[in-house]
Amino acid sequence: MNTMQVELGDRSYPIYMGVGNLDKADLLIQHIKSKQVIIVTNETVAPLYLQQVSRHLQQFQVEVVILPDGEQYKTLSTVETVFTALLSKQFSRNATLIALGGGVVGDISGFAAACYQRGIPFIQIPTTLLAQVDSSVGGKTGVNHALGKNMIGAFYQPQCVIIDVNVLATLDDRQLAAGIAEVIKYGLIRDYDFFSWIEVNIDKILARDETALTYIIEQSCRNKAEVVAADERESGTRAILNLGHTFGHAIETGVGYGRYLHGEAVAIGTCQAADLSRRMGLLTDIDVERIETLLRKVGLPTEPPVDLSAEEFINLMAVDKKNVDGEIRLILLNKIGEASLPIGVERSVLLETLNHYGRTD
Amino acid sequence: MNTMQVELGDRSYPIYMGVGNLDKADLLIQHIKSKQVIIVTNETVAPLYLQQVSRHLQQFQVEVVILPDGEQYKTLSTVETVFTALLSKQFSRNATLIALGGGVVGDISGFAAACYQRGIPFIQIPTTLLAQVDSSVGGKTGVNHALGKNMIGAFYQPQCVIIDVNVLATLDDRQLAAGIAEVIKYGLIRDYDFFSWIEVNIDKILARDETALTYIIEQSCRNKAEVVAADERESGTRAILNLGHTFGHAIETGVGYGRYLHGEAVAIGTCQAADLSRRMGLLTDIDVERIETLLRKVGLPTEPPVDLSAEEFINLMAVDKKNVDGEIRLILLNKIGEASLPIGVERSVLLETLNHYGRTD
Repeated sequence: MNTMQVELGDRSYPIYMGVGNLDKADLLIQHIKSKQVIIVTNETVAPLYLQQVSRHLQQFQVEVVILPDGEQYKTLSTVETVFTALLSKQFSRNATLIALGGGVVGDISGFAAACYQRGIPFIQIPTTLLAQVDSSVGGKTGVNHALGKNMIGAFYQPQCVIIDVNVLATLDDRQLAAGIAEVIKYGLIRDYDFFSWIEVNIDKILARDETALTYIIEQSCRNKAEVVAADERESGTRAILNLGHTFGHAIETGVGYGRYLHGEAVAIGTCQAADLSRRMGLLTDIDVERIETLLRKVGLPTEPPVDLSAEEFINLMAVDKKNVDGEIRLILLNKIGEASLPIGVERSVLLETLNHYGRTD
Repeated sequence: MNTMQVELGDRSYPIYMGVGNLDKADLLIQHIKSKQVIIVTNETVAPLYLQQVSRHLQQFQVEVVILPDGEQYKTLSTVETVFTALLSKQFSRNATLIALGGGVVGDISGFAAACYQRGIPFIQIPTTLLAQVDSSVGGKTGVNHALGKNMIGAFYQPQCVIIDVNVLATLDDRQLAAGIAEVIKYGLIRDYDFFSWIEVNIDKILARDETALTYIIEQSCRNKAEVVAADERESGTRAILNLGHTFGHAIETGVGYGRYLHGEAVAIGTCQAADLSRRMGLLTDIDVERIETLLRKVGLPTEPPVDLSAEEFINLMAVDKKNVDGEIRLILLNKIGEASLPIGVERSVLLETLNHYGRTD
């Protein structure tokens, strides 16, 4: 097992990465300082891993909330169901919440933990690759609004993150690919060597080779932890983690939450950001081709949905946390392995990218 | 004008206290670092003070949200209407939210500011005595849940608090009295001299003598700021500000939000806490009489509603942020001018207090 510390002063916490971590009772129990424990999971994950986790907790008063599965349930009203569960059992401010699931479960549960009695301790046990390499680390919690993705939330750090590589065995191919989109992102924004390694080893990753999966989780978490430690609340450099996300969020919101997995929308957005970087003279044609080829090999979509017009895109992109006074700002690539900070982009150039794909508007 | 700093490191901020502060454009504008400004107020306050504030903001893009008035609207769904207003105008993460109103408006708006895009700057302009002396200072924001008062929220500090003593001229008597309940609380928990001063000057306060009102605001804010600076997130001493609140919250939740003003419920709860303190051998009969006499002079209720049984009370009190692993803990008085830290109380003694009043259960 490899342990990595996210360095955030008195909010620092460990990420445990390894094979079989769900079977290690102590790993979990040492972080629970209360009698009362609530596990929030979903209907897909519960049959697979709920018993494996809850059997460690027989000495506690354990409640379980099982949410429906899917991005379309990442709403304030789902968070309210978690509050109701906590209150109907009279759970105290020292109760511990365990988020057992993918990014949606983690984001909802983390936000519930941040807000219940103004904050209770919580633990992340991510069960998708995307949650393991990205959403469970760094304290971004929250939900969607019909008018914008992840627009409601809190920065709220967990007590620890417990990653078990074994759980990836039950992940369906589409979910695995979505996670790889965020893995590739780390290479693109700040780690050229990692990007090259992924290119070379992509077949092993897709074959779910345990060593390869462990390696991409470790490298991704290291990159994420370094960025978050440098800028917890995204006043500067943390924004680079948003490569492809302004386009991606616009797609998720525009076509309705749940049609694309988050990682799929990010893959498309990454291609659009790469194309825009090329038009701004930052990337070469070869760079863009390299990025698209890798994403296609993973089986990820690389073109935006035909039913989202350029005008709708721009309107949706106007709702983004990187914007200042309403001006659209994007993360681009200076080169493979180095992201730009958020920069404003001429509408005409943005339109060129949006109209570049097989769409007719 | 008197300015006081709430000392919280990089979250420190000033409280401006004085007569005519709403007319001072600079006071407000120096704290706005964005083009986009949203004012959240309610249907009672808007006709009185919205124009007086918004005329300072002609250089900004100003949106206004007018909420219904009353504790029963302090819900997650009201917060969502603020999010919808912000998103439908594509407001950015650097937009400023101004909370113009009493405690309910401040709590809702502050929580909306805490969660919108994971946090936007906000400014408190409290227009009730209760909000001026208590809820606008210290960063407690949040909403009620049907199963518990203030159970959902965030610690989130404003950029500044602008208090204008003039606005108390339009406050109805019931609201004024409710505010005085929290003023008296500061005397009881940590400031014997202030308590005595209030006893001597209560007629001036009730006659809305400007000097007396200014004095109680300043002394209350000083006491609040000192407690908050010592323990921002209520891991210890801040809990003393909750004197009377465990009983009070139970009353508000039990009879339905809105029947009592918060300060009224706190007045009743303060009498119950005093009675319990007497039963625990901490206060004398004379102390309790002094407290009840002062609250009665203000016109505040001092007995719990007859339609709330002792059993219901205890069940409601089991949902409280001071509880640990479900055990009820209360703030009591060691003497007038000194609160206890949260202490567990025998159920039998608690029942004596609950059954002490003119109720028949």
